[in-house]
Amino acid sequence: MDSVSVGVDVGGTLTKVVALTGGGSILREFELPTQGGEGPQRFIERLGSVLRLLASELGRSPAALGLALAGEVDSRRGILRYAPNLPKWNGFDFRRALRGRVGGRVVVENDANMAVWGAYVRELKRKPKHVVGITLGTGVGGGLVIDGRLHRGATGSAGEFGHMRVNPRGRRCRCGSRGCLEAYLGAWALLADAKRALRRRPSRALRTLCPDLRRLETRHLALAAQGGDRVCRQIWEEAGENFALGLAGLVMILNPEVVLLLGGVSKAGKLLLSPLRRRLAAEPFRAPFRGLSVRASRNPNWGCVGAALFALEPDPGAR
Amino acid sequence: MDSVSVGVDVGGTLTKVVALTGGGSILREFELPTQGGEGPQRFIERLGSVLRLLASELGRSPAALGLALAGEVDSRRGILRYAPNLPKWNGFDFRRALRGRVGGRVVVENDANMAVWGAYVRELKRKPKHVVGITLGTGVGGGLVIDGRLHRGATGSAGEFGHMRVNPRGRRCRCGSRGCLEAYLGAWALLADAKRALRRRPSRALRTLCPDLRRLETRHLALAAQGGDRVCRQIWEEAGENFALGLAGLVMILNPEVVLLLGGVSKAGKLLLSPLRRRLAAEPFRAPFRGLSVRASRNPNWGCVGAALFALEPDPGAR
Repeated sequence: MDSVSVGVDVGGTLTKVVALTGGGSILREFELPTQGGEGPQRFIERLGSVLRLLASELGRSPAALGLALAGEVDSRRGILRYAPNLPKWNGFDFRRALRGRVGGRVVVENDANMAVWGAYVRELKRKPKHVVGITLGTGVGGGLVIDGRLHRGATGSAGEFGHMRVNPRGRRCRCGSRGCLEAYLGAWALLADAKRALRRRPSRALRTLCPDLRRLETRHLALAAQGGDRVCRQIWEEAGENFALGLAGLVMILNPEVVLLLGGVSKAGKLLLSPLRRRLAAEPFRAPFRGLSVRASRNPNWGCVGAALFALEPDPGAR
Repeated sequence: MDSVSVGVDVGGTLTKVVALTGGGSILREFELPTQGGEGPQRFIERLGSVLRLLASELGRSPAALGLALAGEVDSRRGILRYAPNLPKWNGFDFRRALRGRVGGRVVVENDANMAVWGAYVRELKRKPKHVVGITLGTGVGGGLVIDGRLHRGATGSAGEFGHMRVNPRGRRCRCGSRGCLEAYLGAWALLADAKRALRRRPSRALRTLCPDLRRLETRHLALAAQGGDRVCRQIWEEAGENFALGLAGLVMILNPEVVLLLGGVSKAGKLLLSPLRRRLAAEPFRAPFRGLSVRASRNPNWGCVGAALFALEPDPGAR
């Protein structure tokens, strides 16, 4: 009987749970409210109920569980070091808490790393050796696959691209620094751009798509731009150009085969990819850009599946 | 009998040759003029004479040879793709040309990669897993060790840090772009800084150390600064601060244990390291900077030894 692996992706509001076969087929999917304010022990109990339900439905305990958390994770020890959005969870030993509830291995990892891993295995079929994955959500993060394996770095924070500086005199970022990639490309930054632009020049398209600007989302900016709205086109254009400044450095450093964009903002597709590719094509130092593929993932939310797949790796704790 | 490996580091003027035992002891060292204008075939013949001399002196043929070239190398095939300073050598198949002259394996690699490899094996004793090496010479380059192995990237250009942009509106670089790391940290840029500064404000120290400014070298700038010269101290201070802008991004991407500075400019030591470390310590996103060691190599010229050591690796062609 094929072994079952469970992936758990903890979001700010909802936690997604998926059960996969070793071959990657999805057996079951669940969602539970994260309710981070309650503390991690209550979360583990509620997740435990889901795992019991799963085991009884599938007639077997999962052989492995991968937990994806938005924060700094000590993956060797299975501890969440620091999560800005889950302050009560900091320092909690998730591996120990979950070990009794899963038959097999428990792997705890950063959520962006797991999303990149999921895309690498399922979408790229592990074909390229070196891949840079960039998660574009409210914040900007990412993960690296080097020589076919996840690269965590010395303390597990490799691939945190959000606060790379693309312009030292650039925009103020929410981290306190200036000119971070996130200050140009995070959903919060794009929405602030749109609201600023709308004060100068109203956009009928945007008003129609989202009459209440407090509910504005980046998908509205993409829809309006796709419909020809100039204000929104300009926002994506600038975002793509600033993205290229950071991405060019990344590509020179790592020389990957593929750069893959993930996360909600990546759904903007060509709006973001066209100015990005155009700028990269103009880089004077050509070597690492020749043959480079820059694309948006077909499924921007691989975190949960990636965590389940990663927990099945022969040696997920090695790097 | 311990096997012998030969390392060859081709510089613009001089080519250095070293013969090492497998244990890393230096048996012989030679220098020959590169004379790149003559074309690669003549160079191979002259190198062949050195190899014959070596074999007769040591009583055996080398088991491996590592050739380090300043340019874009196809290390899989052993071909120099593109070397800006050796135009007649572009496209030459060095592996084939050398194979008949060495008993064993011939490895052709980028010179900065080999310098970083030499420092990794001999100076760091392979202890850290992830190391960023930055070569600071006339130009700026580097190499990456990831998980204890050299990371070349998809096309062998990984670790080319010189043209990472630290400021998109910054100084004009000799590559045609703006604000590249090299435009702040390459020896050519530091010397231009000094000459510019001297036009505004003369430096008695520098005039004493180097009466003919056409012969100015970065070691003069370091000596003057160490002696308290303000103009020169300011140059190193600014270089270190601009270096930090680029290095911070590198560290966030890769999360290495060690950043090692190599090459002639790294001899400035604390003049460069102090402002660099101070700026890195002020980065708001702390995770990858905690525990990071940033230091200058004790031997800034590991290229030749690195090439000899790399040629002895069990699988030097894998990444």
